[in-house]
Amino acid sequence: MSKLTFKIEQTDENARAGVLQFQGLESVPTPVFMPVGTQATVKSMKQEELEEIGYRLILANTYHLYLRPGEEVMNHFGGVKKFMSWPHAVLTDSGGFQAFSLSDLSKYTEQGVSFKSHIDGSSHMFTPQRVMEIQKALGSDIIMPIDDCAPFPADSNRLKESLKRTHDWFDLTYRYWNDSGMVETQNLFSIVQGGTDPELRKISARVLREFDVPGHAIGGLSVGETTDLFVPALKAATEELPVEKPRYLMGVGTIPEIIHAVDAGVDMMDCVLPTRNARNGQVFTSAGKLNLRNLSNQLDDRPMDETCSCSVCQRYSRGYIRHLHKTNELLAYSLSTYHNLHFMKRFMEGMREAIMTASFTEFKLHWLAIYGQASR
Amino acid sequence: MSKLTFKIEQTDENARAGVLQFQGLESVPTPVFMPVGTQATVKSMKQEELEEIGYRLILANTYHLYLRPGEEVMNHFGGVKKFMSWPHAVLTDSGGFQAFSLSDLSKYTEQGVSFKSHIDGSSHMFTPQRVMEIQKALGSDIIMPIDDCAPFPADSNRLKESLKRTHDWFDLTYRYWNDSGMVETQNLFSIVQGGTDPELRKISARVLREFDVPGHAIGGLSVGETTDLFVPALKAATEELPVEKPRYLMGVGTIPEIIHAVDAGVDMMDCVLPTRNARNGQVFTSAGKLNLRNLSNQLDDRPMDETCSCSVCQRYSRGYIRHLHKTNELLAYSLSTYHNLHFMKRFMEGMREAIMTASFTEFKLHWLAIYGQASR
Repeated sequence: MSKLTFKIEQTDENARAGVLQFQGLESVPTPVFMPVGTQATVKSMKQEELEEIGYRLILANTYHLYLRPGEEVMNHFGGVKKFMSWPHAVLTDSGGFQAFSLSDLSKYTEQGVSFKSHIDGSSHMFTPQRVMEIQKALGSDIIMPIDDCAPFPADSNRLKESLKRTHDWFDLTYRYWNDSGMVETQNLFSIVQGGTDPELRKISARVLREFDVPGHAIGGLSVGETTDLFVPALKAATEELPVEKPRYLMGVGTIPEIIHAVDAGVDMMDCVLPTRNARNGQVFTSAGKLNLRNLSNQLDDRPMDETCSCSVCQRYSRGYIRHLHKTNELLAYSLSTYHNLHFMKRFMEGMREAIMTASFTEFKLHWLAIYGQASR
Repeated sequence: MSKLTFKIEQTDENARAGVLQFQGLESVPTPVFMPVGTQATVKSMKQEELEEIGYRLILANTYHLYLRPGEEVMNHFGGVKKFMSWPHAVLTDSGGFQAFSLSDLSKYTEQGVSFKSHIDGSSHMFTPQRVMEIQKALGSDIIMPIDDCAPFPADSNRLKESLKRTHDWFDLTYRYWNDSGMVETQNLFSIVQGGTDPELRKISARVLREFDVPGHAIGGLSVGETTDLFVPALKAATEELPVEKPRYLMGVGTIPEIIHAVDAGVDMMDCVLPTRNARNGQVFTSAGKLNLRNLSNQLDDRPMDETCSCSVCQRYSRGYIRHLHKTNELLAYSLSTYHNLHFMKRFMEGMREAIMTASFTEFKLHWLAIYGQASR
């Protein structure tokens, strides 16, 4: 829980290389990919392993931690960071999206999202103030407001409704943040909505940039739209956001999406893709994606990625990890996840280096040639 | 794959402190507990973690590895040790027990065990020679013969049948081991049977000690019998086995069983208990067993065991690990398993130290007071 400062060290066209500094914590170079630790754990990873790879900022989820273990436990332990023994930065999303998408009988009202727990069916209500209160118990460094994330595709009326609700709720969130004193210790970001409509994205960004917050997020993208809708909507938002504040693109994404996002001036991203795909046996390599379960790996002595320096690629073969996946052994998940998170970290470091040396375009073309324009 | 020598350094009544030395490998102090790595992985553990805790000898299972990934893969990789990247010792059991107990339509014949795979229903036959051939492909340091392990309870006729079959098969095994040249590189143990009948145990041991093998195992115990049947049957066997060779009690066991076994002169043991219980949320501590899923741990800041020096107890609280178990998070399994295997390693080290300092009786009384005489 500490004040955030952001410094841009270098730009290459719209791409930015910066540093997030949380008071009293290790700094976080940007562009940054943040692993997702939904239930106060990045699935299958020890906190030591995340540190070893180099991560210092991860996500946790307010909806999940509110249901289990709950606020009482969080208050007892002094927040999610102490609870999970992670002495680095944590960003929590508001849980509004999960409350709406994972729960039964959820609905948006003027006041917030009412929903029934996906675990025991109990009734709950997330309002702008309530999700702030929960995130106070979580003690996360970056906190997110509840918003109305319209699905894709959504018509113009639905998108306008999303915008109005998101902005009205943010107004309430912002006031609560100031009045409750959370402004002193936890960094609130706003969330720009507007679907794939560049005009609405601009409007949303213009409304939200008026709030004195440490950063701005962009929500509701990478929800099924094509790249030629994704990029203009994203750029419309970033162009209207203040240059000096960090920009966080929520829930993104694939390698091509991350490249497009940084190209549009985004600094922070999170996604379950590297961790979820790893558990399904799909790993990233310098030569593209690799499906470990394929028969072609059965007699393969090589590491998952011959150019990778991670401890898994130093020791274990494709053939062995394939066997672990085929027999549903737990070690399959941790080895594959470790590699994918290591890959993402090095990929982001390479991207930052490219920005620092004015070669982001080469970097972009190199990786888009391998991973395609928008493949998932 | 290397010749085994065994040296006893100290005894305390029947308990023995020794050293297993596989040519070219790190030595293994005894009494030793061997973690079970059924499918060429100790469930949820990286090989680095096993090394970190101090293990240098683990089990793998012939039945499982024969079915998946199969001999072709094993031959390609040069055996299970290279396959799983474990440059230490491996013991493989013959798979006969699993073929009989896990498979459909399995039956003992004079020739061996015929069975259908529990994975795809395909038909297979394990003979004394066949399981040796498979273990040759596995390249394990200690190999086991196929035997007839009678269930508990078994009547006298069934036990005598088990003995005859076990001895006849061992005769064939021993000849194959010598004739095939495996005698040069892989260490065959015999298996004493006889159920809970001390007289039959003696007979079996007397037959098998006539074979010039590097060690002897005792099978068919800890299969449901009470401690007052377990101990006499075990002692009857160890008393007849040659003093100078290592004795391996298969599939044992609980803390009290391990103490009773070492008390009877056993040097080596293996069991799924520490790893399986860990995945169910039950861990060993210096004060007894702890059920992590219990509500009483919800707000507990303490480590699983306050006296434990393992890396998990240095960092994570009971409350956090309980949360991981309650939410079925993968990290629950690896943290709990790591701790249990660390506990077992230190427990065995403490036992060895007690033997070296003529205080095994105090050690025994201390731990039996905490863990009971025979609790599981």
